[in-house]
Amino acid sequence: MIVTPVTYRFDQPLALRSGAVLPAYELVVETHGTLNADKSNAVLVCHALNASHHVAGFHADANGQPLPRSEGWWHNMIGPGKPVDTNRFFVIGVNNLGSCFGSTGPTHTNPATGQAWGADFPVVTVEDWVDAQARLLDTMGIDTLAAVMGGSLGGMQAVSWTLQYPDRVRHAVVVASAPNLTAENIAFNEVARRAIVTDPDFHGGHYLRHGTLPRRGLRIARMIGHITYLSDDVMNEKFGRALRAADGEDPAAIAELAYRYSTTDVEFQIESYLRYQGDKFSEYFDANTYLLITRALDYFDPAREHDGNLSAALARAKAKFLLVSFTTDWRFSPARSREIAKALLENDRDVSYCEIDAPHGHDAFLLDDARYHAAVRSYFEHTVGAAR
Amino acid sequence: MIVTPVTYRFDQPLALRSGAVLPAYELVVETHGTLNADKSNAVLVCHALNASHHVAGFHADANGQPLPRSEGWWHNMIGPGKPVDTNRFFVIGVNNLGSCFGSTGPTHTNPATGQAWGADFPVVTVEDWVDAQARLLDTMGIDTLAAVMGGSLGGMQAVSWTLQYPDRVRHAVVVASAPNLTAENIAFNEVARRAIVTDPDFHGGHYLRHGTLPRRGLRIARMIGHITYLSDDVMNEKFGRALRAADGEDPAAIAELAYRYSTTDVEFQIESYLRYQGDKFSEYFDANTYLLITRALDYFDPAREHDGNLSAALARAKAKFLLVSFTTDWRFSPARSREIAKALLENDRDVSYCEIDAPHGHDAFLLDDARYHAAVRSYFEHTVGAAR
Repeated sequence: MIVTPVTYRFDQPLALRSGAVLPAYELVVETHGTLNADKSNAVLVCHALNASHHVAGFHADANGQPLPRSEGWWHNMIGPGKPVDTNRFFVIGVNNLGSCFGSTGPTHTNPATGQAWGADFPVVTVEDWVDAQARLLDTMGIDTLAAVMGGSLGGMQAVSWTLQYPDRVRHAVVVASAPNLTAENIAFNEVARRAIVTDPDFHGGHYLRHGTLPRRGLRIARMIGHITYLSDDVMNEKFGRALRAADGEDPAAIAELAYRYSTTDVEFQIESYLRYQGDKFSEYFDANTYLLITRALDYFDPAREHDGNLSAALARAKAKFLLVSFTTDWRFSPARSREIAKALLENDRDVSYCEIDAPHGHDAFLLDDARYHAAVRSYFEHTVGAAR
Repeated sequence: MIVTPVTYRFDQPLALRSGAVLPAYELVVETHGTLNADKSNAVLVCHALNASHHVAGFHADANGQPLPRSEGWWHNMIGPGKPVDTNRFFVIGVNNLGSCFGSTGPTHTNPATGQAWGADFPVVTVEDWVDAQARLLDTMGIDTLAAVMGGSLGGMQAVSWTLQYPDRVRHAVVVASAPNLTAENIAFNEVARRAIVTDPDFHGGHYLRHGTLPRRGLRIARMIGHITYLSDDVMNEKFGRALRAADGEDPAAIAELAYRYSTTDVEFQIESYLRYQGDKFSEYFDANTYLLITRALDYFDPAREHDGNLSAALARAKAKFLLVSFTTDWRFSPARSREIAKALLENDRDVSYCEIDAPHGHDAFLLDDARYHAAVRSYFEHTVGAAR
């Protein structure tokens, strides 16, 4: 299943929540399946921190063959016969503003200066993303979404859709998300940002002009992120206190290895894993994008304009909801999803809530779990897909 | 209650677990109370990551008056009439090898080179610290401790005392500790170390020779540490999503503040708190010490030599134990203390275990909590202090 991204250009300025105005912008989009005649089967999939429009399928090489390891980030969820069945639904993946995967962002040229936006790219919020996504739907001629769907930060966008455009969403599928970040989550984001911003190669966010990249900071940011995506349990199960065999050492003898007694060498497997993840991330992800996206997470808080009353904030929503959380997710814990469910029920909204007993922490929302996928499948098959 | 540190010099070489030998070294010590005639009332207090020998009392200014804010790190626990009552017990606080608070460490001169040890200071383990502490007791003429006591990494030293010198410890008081670190704990330590080591001012650990200090890395390390010392609950209670008022803004109007829409300015109070803690720490703590002490935490694992069987590892212990844990401590969770209790009970050892329902996370072991302090007081009064 080959998919090809399409770029949509928007020449009307976009007014952002910060007060800044983006003069013009592009959004990169991928679609799966076929929009039906009455345009009632569209499902918008919103992405989280380091994902993109590429939600499913493969990209092609020069010969039209699938590129290895090019599958979309939610490929186990979306596709023909998958829980979100593209034989039935028209799935839209869109890359958000500020990203480094194609849509207008800090690595693009600022028309006012002719140089890369860098640190001058305006701060974008979940609400801004949703506004931009709504314009995309206008362009595509889609008035109402059968569903909007996302995990983590993507779930926040799904919630925001039901508040900003209540008449344009029939269903919201909100996975491993929260009505806002806790102080602890903001704290982790802030440490990651400080690691990036204080990297001498950051140059106030204008590193591209200096021919550098703040890779040190990005590595640290990603390592912190990875710790919070996993549960303590799964980390113990996958890595525990196992030592890493050095080149030439017999991996079978790992348990028998002696400590190396070094503060800077890799000693434990978990260290090796984190360093690898950090290195990989620092090669492809843009530092300014990392700052923007973590800030969008921090800022999201629909109850804020209602004196912290989430029930009042969600009164605008008209959609039906499926909420999913995972027991060992300590970044977006089940308690946070239950807050959303409670606030919706207080407004007599139609809510299904699944709490999945999974060991994988926040990462669970991206993984194959039979109960989780069965719940989403059933919701799309019987509820989203029901005759209206 | 003024206390003055005393330096003990040791000229016999100390063989370390790493195979390295420390040719000679100094330990800085403070004592409280009076050693009784049969030298049976000594309590050794072991410190954790960023603490020292200065467990209680105040340091004096030039006029012999208490210096403001100079109280010891466990002043609410130790002193006349306190849970560890220095009217009755002779309390010894000792700074560990590798520290930056007086005992021989990386900022001291390496006799082999005439320069600061820096990165060449040997890796030290919990077991090495205990060996050095045992020599100190030899010098002080103390054969047997009434008790050895510590929290967190200090608790690991207390456990190790009962295994390395089982005949020299009558009681071990082990607070908010663990039989080893989990993968998640090692992961947090590793990210902190990478932040320090990859700071360009680190210079391979020889920053003193370069006239620099890796303050950026230390700040990040401390921010990460602080997040893990607090519970999610207490962070929400203390900071929540409150915004920080800028200079000149009315703090009473904080709740009404608008977002500033910046990725680099302080927006939330939790950010301000973490930056302040990071800045403060980076001014006084030595980076190499941070690496050494986090590595000592990683390495501690008495069950390792017994194929992971903690019960077999603790069979050597003869002491009686008081274990204390705190419900919201996710760094050294109650489950970890219960592992120690279980392994001791399997050896028919005498164990008291207190699980304190406290909201403060790992930090709770340093805070005033009536139930916690009552338990320690009662243990010292009735059990440690009982006629033998």
